[in-house]
Amino acid sequence: FSLSSLRGTIQPELSKRLYRLIKSENNLVSAHEQAAKERVSIATQLSEWGEQTSDDAISDVSDKIGVLLSEMGEQEDNYAHALDDSRGILKTIRNTEKSVQPSRDGKTKIADEIMKLKSKDPKSERLVVLEQELVRAEAENLVAEAQLMNITRQKLKEAYTAEFLATIERADKQIILARHGLRLLQLLDDTPVVPGDVRAAFPHASQARQILNDAEDDLRDWRPNGLTTANATSPP
Amino acid sequence: FSLSSLRGTIQPELSKRLYRLIKSENNLVSAHEQAAKERVSIATQLSEWGEQTSDDAISDVSDKIGVLLSEMGEQEDNYAHALDDSRGILKTIRNTEKSVQPSRDGKTKIADEIMKLKSKDPKSERLVVLEQELVRAEAENLVAEAQLMNITRQKLKEAYTAEFLATIERADKQIILARHGLRLLQLLDDTPVVPGDVRAAFPHASQARQILNDAEDDLRDWRPNGLTTANATSPP
Repeated sequence: FSLSSLRGTIQPELSKRLYRLIKSENNLVSAHEQAAKERVSIATQLSEWGEQTSDDAISDVSDKIGVLLSEMGEQEDNYAHALDDSRGILKTIRNTEKSVQPSRDGKTKIADEIMKLKSKDPKSERLVVLEQELVRAEAENLVAEAQLMNITRQKLKEAYTAEFLATIERADKQIILARHGLRLLQLLDDTPVVPGDVRAAFPHASQARQILNDAEDDLRDWRPNGLTTANATSPP
Repeated sequence: FSLSSLRGTIQPELSKRLYRLIKSENNLVSAHEQAAKERVSIATQLSEWGEQTSDDAISDVSDKIGVLLSEMGEQEDNYAHALDDSRGILKTIRNTEKSVQPSRDGKTKIADEIMKLKSKDPKSERLVVLEQELVRAEAENLVAEAQLMNITRQKLKEAYTAEFLATIERADKQIILARHGLRLLQLLDDTPVVPGDVRAAFPHASQARQILNDAEDDLRDWRPNGLTTANATSPP
């Protein structure tokens, strides 16, 4: 039992499922935020660990791997924010569902009343008024249901288009970072030394620096590929 | 204060940093596992929500988006497992660090003892024995330090090569899923209906089915691009 589960149960029937889904999306956002935070922390720790190994090559490479991992964490955090924005779009559907429920209920209530009255007192004067009320309620509900259908389609499309585009952006950028990370690791000579051998100073320092520059350039040059937000989402 | 932080403080100085980094990697693994779990749960919820909308198009599209999201969650989970494997490789470095500490300490202790004895009793018989002990300790430490350097380079390269390859695999596969997801959303006609209009049954059911098949094919055909595990990691 928790306060939030109580709040879930007092949602109208129509918006209950989406209400829970939006809560799960919130957990998803938190998980990716957490992953981003840990990734950035690991990046710093790796760099600091490398510095105290008294091995030039390890120190240089671990520091630069740290820079790439830290940027990978930033991309994870951007992704979490994009998921949160998409979650906000789903709320529009949920709110419309919520507002349509009373309209459905009202229509059903009047129809039920008419049924009951017809079997109990088929000549009642109130039947005329109720029939008029039902026509008005039906008209109002017709508009509400059309609004719901329109909002649901538009916003579902919008929300998941945004999620998928964010997924592609995170993936593209993390691929860039990972590929340059693999290049960096290739600079690390791991052929075993024999006891007493002293390794020369790290001979690839400038190449390592260049790899970071390349990664920076590639990230800056990144553009959404093929599908742009403009033509992939529904027109406003 | 917690039990784990206490365990952190009783690590020898040399392995303290890596000990903490490996703990952070564990948190990172958990965060991605959590993200995977939420993603799969959202997928089911989306499909179930769509089913009760009484809109054929929403029902069909949300169900198939759910299938893609669920597979996206599976990929996230695979990624978490790969990170965990990479974390296991870092432990080899940490364990070596841990075992090298006593060797460093032993050497320093004997050297200190010699220094003290030389100033107090420079003609002591024990100096000869201590000098012999120091030579043995230095030889032992020389081996230990070489082992540490070798293991550190090999395992650092191996661990992060594995992480980067896993990052690329998750990214590639999630891009496949997201691209097909965008195609699915394009099948959803979101031009507004007017109240009372009835939409025709969803006309793109077979196309939607085909998109799932395409996604399945693309995932099955996926191969590591360019860098393979074999030539990217260090030779055994």
